[in-house]
Amino acid sequence: MTPAAASPLTRKLSAFVALSEAELAVLARLHGRRRSFVAGRDMAHQGQSDQAAYILSAGWVCSYKIQPDGTRQIVDFQVPGDFLGLRSVLLRTSDHSFEPIVDVEAAEVLTGDLLEAFARTPRLATAILWAASRDEAMVVEHLVGIGRRDAGARMAHFLLELGSRLALVGMGSKEGYDCPLTQYHLADALGLSAVHVNRVLRQLRERGLVTFRDGHVAFHDYSGLAELAGFDPAYLDQTGPLLK
Amino acid sequence: MTPAAASPLTRKLSAFVALSEAELAVLARLHGRRRSFVAGRDMAHQGQSDQAAYILSAGWVCSYKIQPDGTRQIVDFQVPGDFLGLRSVLLRTSDHSFEPIVDVEAAEVLTGDLLEAFARTPRLATAILWAASRDEAMVVEHLVGIGRRDAGARMAHFLLELGSRLALVGMGSKEGYDCPLTQYHLADALGLSAVHVNRVLRQLRERGLVTFRDGHVAFHDYSGLAELAGFDPAYLDQTGPLLK
Repeated sequence: MTPAAASPLTRKLSAFVALSEAELAVLARLHGRRRSFVAGRDMAHQGQSDQAAYILSAGWVCSYKIQPDGTRQIVDFQVPGDFLGLRSVLLRTSDHSFEPIVDVEAAEVLTGDLLEAFARTPRLATAILWAASRDEAMVVEHLVGIGRRDAGARMAHFLLELGSRLALVGMGSKEGYDCPLTQYHLADALGLSAVHVNRVLRQLRERGLVTFRDGHVAFHDYSGLAELAGFDPAYLDQTGPLLK
Repeated sequence: MTPAAASPLTRKLSAFVALSEAELAVLARLHGRRRSFVAGRDMAHQGQSDQAAYILSAGWVCSYKIQPDGTRQIVDFQVPGDFLGLRSVLLRTSDHSFEPIVDVEAAEVLTGDLLEAFARTPRLATAILWAASRDEAMVVEHLVGIGRRDAGARMAHFLLELGSRLALVGMGSKEGYDCPLTQYHLADALGLSAVHVNRVLRQLRERGLVTFRDGHVAFHDYSGLAELAGFDPAYLDQTGPLLK
């Protein structure tokens, strides 16, 4: 087993394509430039050019935009197995910033590395396009959800989506998952105040659906929560490899 | 010059990669299965599986989601040179519907076609990933804009973004562009009522910034409109090929 065979990205891409030995070897090479980043210090800034992309192997990161009025909108969170800044490396200018939420480990990927990997293993290119499409589907889901789902359903949907993403890389289940996010992160992602986040979480707990406390999300009634959220995980496409 | 050399997709991808003869030939093959669709009848439905992707060569399409409460949220519009359903073909289940706004011409692309094209020309795979990243950057921009920009700035940003996209495929300039969208399309995309859309367009016209009438958008004061919208086109990455 190569090192990358056990990496979260490998686990994730395996949901789309049954990877060959040659493809696993190329993935392992993409993990070659290991970097560490400390919590709270931006890995990349909005507007920055000539930036590398990263494959997150341990820890959590948030990507966000600062509005002209100074408020912060969190666009998404990245968990192990996710690319950071894949879009920025291709679009040349980063349209958002990344901040590690905890200390993180990541592999740096330059545009040249990516092109070389694509040239050797086109199925890997397709798998990475799949992962990017999945990221886009999540942003679309957030776009459509904002303002349409009430605060309870929005929170429920968010906790369920994170749970499914983490389950794909072996870090969660329908029982729950460890989660380092604070109520401020939840507030900036969901467009709620921290006080409102607090109240919504208490209501979900009192209804016996889910508890988020001490860095852990515990699902008490998974299907009840999914019903409240209107959560249909088809857009995450985790049902097994399309390409054998 | 191959037929695809003149296609809108070819023009668009050329902003990212200087295409070789071999790459142009593969692109031409991707345009092989020509289809026509009439205005107003969905090309694909939310929840549909085993769907093809399309490369739009003429006409306008909108992609949308129907909410549980029956309202329609338009996620984005597609113009010539854009992929339709690239995400759906990779994610297996379409997370949204497509409706032609006028009669359209499109080339059907099956997953197998795409894989074969990627295997022959990895730089083309990277260019398509670039286009998908650009689509995602637009959705992120809409996500962040919703609720943060007031109605005037939101409309201005929308008209400017469309103008830049159309300019890339030779269908618009800083003078303006032809646009078949109705006030109902604008309302469903921007989260406004049709009456509100009407009022906002009148205000922009009276301020001497832009007129949208009789199927044509005319910019009177491009930089004034860009300033009102806070429009920075860096996320569209149209400044010339990264890969020579």
